[in-house]
Amino acid sequence: MDERTERNELAAQLAVDSIRCSTAAGSGHPTSSMSAAHLLAVLYAGHLRYDVSEPRHPGGDRFVLSKGHASPLLFSTLKAIGAITDEQLLTFRRFGSPVEGHPVPLPDMPWIDVATGSLGQGLPIGLGMALGLRILERPGRVWVLMGDSETAEGSVWEAMENASYHGLDNLIAILDMNRLGQRGPTMLQWDGDAYARRAEAFGWHARVIDGHDVGAISEAYTEAEQTVGPCLIVAKTEKGHGVSFLANREGWHGKALNDEQAAKAIAELGGERSITITPLKPEPLTATEPRRSPGTLPSFDGPVATRKAFGDTLAAMAPTREDLVVLDAEVGNSTYTEEFDEAEPDRFVQFFIAEQAMIGAAVGLQAVGLTPYAATFGAFLSRAYDFTRMAAISRAHVRLSGSHAGVSIGEDGPSQMALEDLASFRAVDGSTVLYPADGASTAALVAEMADTDGIAYIRTTRESTPKLYDAEDAFPIGGSKVHGASGGDVATIVGAGITLIEALTAAETLRGEGTPVRVIDAYSIKPIDGETLRAALDATGLLVVVEDHRVEGGIGDAVLEAIAEGGRPLSGRVVKLGVSRMPSSGSPTELRDWAGISAGAIAEAVRAALG
Amino acid sequence: MDERTERNELAAQLAVDSIRCSTAAGSGHPTSSMSAAHLLAVLYAGHLRYDVSEPRHPGGDRFVLSKGHASPLLFSTLKAIGAITDEQLLTFRRFGSPVEGHPVPLPDMPWIDVATGSLGQGLPIGLGMALGLRILERPGRVWVLMGDSETAEGSVWEAMENASYHGLDNLIAILDMNRLGQRGPTMLQWDGDAYARRAEAFGWHARVIDGHDVGAISEAYTEAEQTVGPCLIVAKTEKGHGVSFLANREGWHGKALNDEQAAKAIAELGGERSITITPLKPEPLTATEPRRSPGTLPSFDGPVATRKAFGDTLAAMAPTREDLVVLDAEVGNSTYTEEFDEAEPDRFVQFFIAEQAMIGAAVGLQAVGLTPYAATFGAFLSRAYDFTRMAAISRAHVRLSGSHAGVSIGEDGPSQMALEDLASFRAVDGSTVLYPADGASTAALVAEMADTDGIAYIRTTRESTPKLYDAEDAFPIGGSKVHGASGGDVATIVGAGITLIEALTAAETLRGEGTPVRVIDAYSIKPIDGETLRAALDATGLLVVVEDHRVEGGIGDAVLEAIAEGGRPLSGRVVKLGVSRMPSSGSPTELRDWAGISAGAIAEAVRAALG
Repeated sequence: MDERTERNELAAQLAVDSIRCSTAAGSGHPTSSMSAAHLLAVLYAGHLRYDVSEPRHPGGDRFVLSKGHASPLLFSTLKAIGAITDEQLLTFRRFGSPVEGHPVPLPDMPWIDVATGSLGQGLPIGLGMALGLRILERPGRVWVLMGDSETAEGSVWEAMENASYHGLDNLIAILDMNRLGQRGPTMLQWDGDAYARRAEAFGWHARVIDGHDVGAISEAYTEAEQTVGPCLIVAKTEKGHGVSFLANREGWHGKALNDEQAAKAIAELGGERSITITPLKPEPLTATEPRRSPGTLPSFDGPVATRKAFGDTLAAMAPTREDLVVLDAEVGNSTYTEEFDEAEPDRFVQFFIAEQAMIGAAVGLQAVGLTPYAATFGAFLSRAYDFTRMAAISRAHVRLSGSHAGVSIGEDGPSQMALEDLASFRAVDGSTVLYPADGASTAALVAEMADTDGIAYIRTTRESTPKLYDAEDAFPIGGSKVHGASGGDVATIVGAGITLIEALTAAETLRGEGTPVRVIDAYSIKPIDGETLRAALDATGLLVVVEDHRVEGGIGDAVLEAIAEGGRPLSGRVVKLGVSRMPSSGSPTELRDWAGISAGAIAEAVRAALG
Repeated sequence: MDERTERNELAAQLAVDSIRCSTAAGSGHPTSSMSAAHLLAVLYAGHLRYDVSEPRHPGGDRFVLSKGHASPLLFSTLKAIGAITDEQLLTFRRFGSPVEGHPVPLPDMPWIDVATGSLGQGLPIGLGMALGLRILERPGRVWVLMGDSETAEGSVWEAMENASYHGLDNLIAILDMNRLGQRGPTMLQWDGDAYARRAEAFGWHARVIDGHDVGAISEAYTEAEQTVGPCLIVAKTEKGHGVSFLANREGWHGKALNDEQAAKAIAELGGERSITITPLKPEPLTATEPRRSPGTLPSFDGPVATRKAFGDTLAAMAPTREDLVVLDAEVGNSTYTEEFDEAEPDRFVQFFIAEQAMIGAAVGLQAVGLTPYAATFGAFLSRAYDFTRMAAISRAHVRLSGSHAGVSIGEDGPSQMALEDLASFRAVDGSTVLYPADGASTAALVAEMADTDGIAYIRTTRESTPKLYDAEDAFPIGGSKVHGASGGDVATIVGAGITLIEALTAAETLRGEGTPVRVIDAYSIKPIDGETLRAALDATGLLVVVEDHRVEGGIGDAVLEAIAEGGRPLSGRVVKLGVSRMPSSGSPTELRDWAGISAGAIAEAVRAALG
């Protein structure tokens, strides 16, 4: 059999298996798989350097299925390379099977690096992988298969502009231009030249080919491998290709064939096959792991802004934590990540104002073994919330920092204030949410985050705050610090970050009035130190929780959850203080007063509650 | 004085006033204002059709300052057209002043339509305004002033592609290409041709001009007014133009000048001026308000998916609510907004998979007086969370629907499951969060949303649910429904949407075992019916709250907040059931069982709590 026939046979098998597994499941996207069968057949049989027994081989390539709904095609390909069996393939979408509805990286599915299924995320992730491989000086390429519908997502263009800006030679995107989206034709249908013009305008090389011609595909892949700079291959394809009643027909998106339809389609495709292939070997290479020695953390003798302490700590860790990569969205002089840039410019990546690409790239960077920290204003991380949600599904270990939290930023006004960040990050699966109040606690937590699994978020403050702790103090995740507890306390004030400072002042005022109160620094909001909180409520009968955040979903709700944990009997009282109206411009002090979260307002709330 | 001199004088005044107000405030962005002074001088003096006494005149144009940090320029322009006084201008950024740090529409600032300050949102909003004016058959144009840094945001390209796809002749974007971002040069610096190529590839007309040449600016505006299709004017400018120590200098972003620097800069600009101008009159036109008669809502005799009931209701309202515009992100056959499309195609807008552009456009549509409903999978609304947050700051009235909520979607897996939506929407200022369980309650709430202020979110379910209510039943926002209450109830189960169905089954089982329980349908999650919940806790001593959502930030937290409201003494017990691990593919039933939110799991939780 000549190579062309071999590839076409393999493509037919991938199409048949895509139908078989989705029909067995009773759902899925066979037609979106069939359009790209030739594209993956040629890639895995002749271009992707891949060791199925060591999918993260340091000399290997990476593949990202950005159009995650074409999962039947990916799993059919994994069967063809011997990664999974036919029996496993047929467990597609079943409860308990790693052959999930959309690709998810799992311990028993090591051939998938990242989760996809929310469209427009594969290219930003691939961008991060390509950057990471370059940082690690590894030879592999990153191949991303995109759908045409998903190019409507702006995040694709964020990745495009950043890939060309950063001159990535090792990133190749393949566009499966099958003309049909979920509910009808795409915006550009089969106008391959229009896609190519867009990519070229964004600094990419682009070429339009027939996506069912295995010779043309292989030639385009070879050209892309040899090209300097990122390449887009626009492959004109048919959705449901190869089957008369599916090819280029509307109304078949996301529909499995019934048994009769499947039999007919499989017959048209020439029946079942059992071809196995071995991809090209990765370049022989022994992985050199980056050094991960803890460095000396900075210490702070006086007041410092926690955002500054964050930047100082990253810079201090830079030389000895060679796995760290810091990502900026054009605010490095505000978040102080510019200090890391000064220390290690080769491990600092500027994404300009493209938060989605930044978080997507962070997922890609950790998928090649690096440790990304991405930072911007907390308010603007909301731009990438879908990417954060998906990062959790990717089981990604990503460190995020949101600066300029709360009304305390002052004059810039509400558009720049992070007021929903704690709520949104708390709701992410397996997340860690931290909010230190001073320099020492920030340094400790920033360092701890480096080795924290999952999505770890640290919230920082614009203004300087006084020194509360020493460099020797420990701040375990899940812990808290109690200030000024005495046996006779009649109330507990719970704060974190800037409101801890206000709480400490309020407590002093109250003590001066003969009202003994304690203060808890809830620097770890998720997980929260429920034991200490419950003990304080039992001891004092009143918790006043104060946060520079919306009243919904933040520290107050985390405290209430801890109080109610396990359905334990409730007693005492909990007062939540937070931002409950729309703020305006003003000084930080004016705005905290207005919001009822200043020292004065806290003291008044305690007095009112104690009647 | 000839026109050129007049425009240059006005531009100098705008630059001077931008310096004056930011220096008075001690913060702000004078140099980002100065780069665009000529652009706004020519726009307001000779092109924008605008009645300062009636800024929403039906025959007028609209202006959006997408680079919201150039607020000093906007307020200086408002002074020049007589909208605000010089004294008001000098209250810039002060607490209590409507002259905020970034533009915000307020009752005493009616010359601003929408809030900006999170970059890359002005063009999507302008797109919505332009669509809205076309729908209303009004002659006005929409002018959007963008910064160059913000073109890195993918949302700009989502707006670009949709504006050309929808053939908008009434949208003109002006790019203030001043070369410098917050922390240094932009990605493309002064490569105006590169911007033009990108815009042209996205279907726009584009022209590069000298942004400080008032003649060239006016000519480009005139050309854009006469061009068919959307136009981008790339204006090469200098940040800090006109002042020797500011012009094109790094390190001046977001910095106010001190008094001495200001005096020197103002002297270089020729001193203070007191020019006033009158913009061109809007076309004489009397507004015809769209009809807003309530139609006949659909009724449902049997099971129906709430997503289907949502689409049915929109379609039923279509003919008599002429203000409704429905927006889709390429899933209209899943959210059933396609039914509205069939009924009123001229008021249905397809945004393809561009959720940010969709929500931005919704803000623009309501700013011209229409009533937008935007719908996609709940999971994918997370893509536009920053737009939703900013929509609240815009005081926008936007209706959102998220379908396919929770693990109950089943086989498609976690990437498609909305599990963080309740938490994120609850945290939005002034939001309303609804989650009906059957057809009748969905229809009632969808209709009610049409006249609800602020961000109103309705969550719907993929599967059919049984009929619970009649078309005559009322579902006021902030209310709830109690099922099967008796004096002897020993527990209350609180559910909403799909978990209400599970809760009702669990209650039946428990009653069969001799354990009387009541069930509360918390269809209104924000505001929640605290009174009914507190009464139920007092009466039964135990609330079991069950939600197909992450345990953080959703219904459980809303219930705890209501229980603790006002610091009232806590008693009884509250058990929260929700999704606390990462789901996989599986059947809806398997996944609800796995998550511990099925009827069986609820009954078991009640039994366990009752010991």
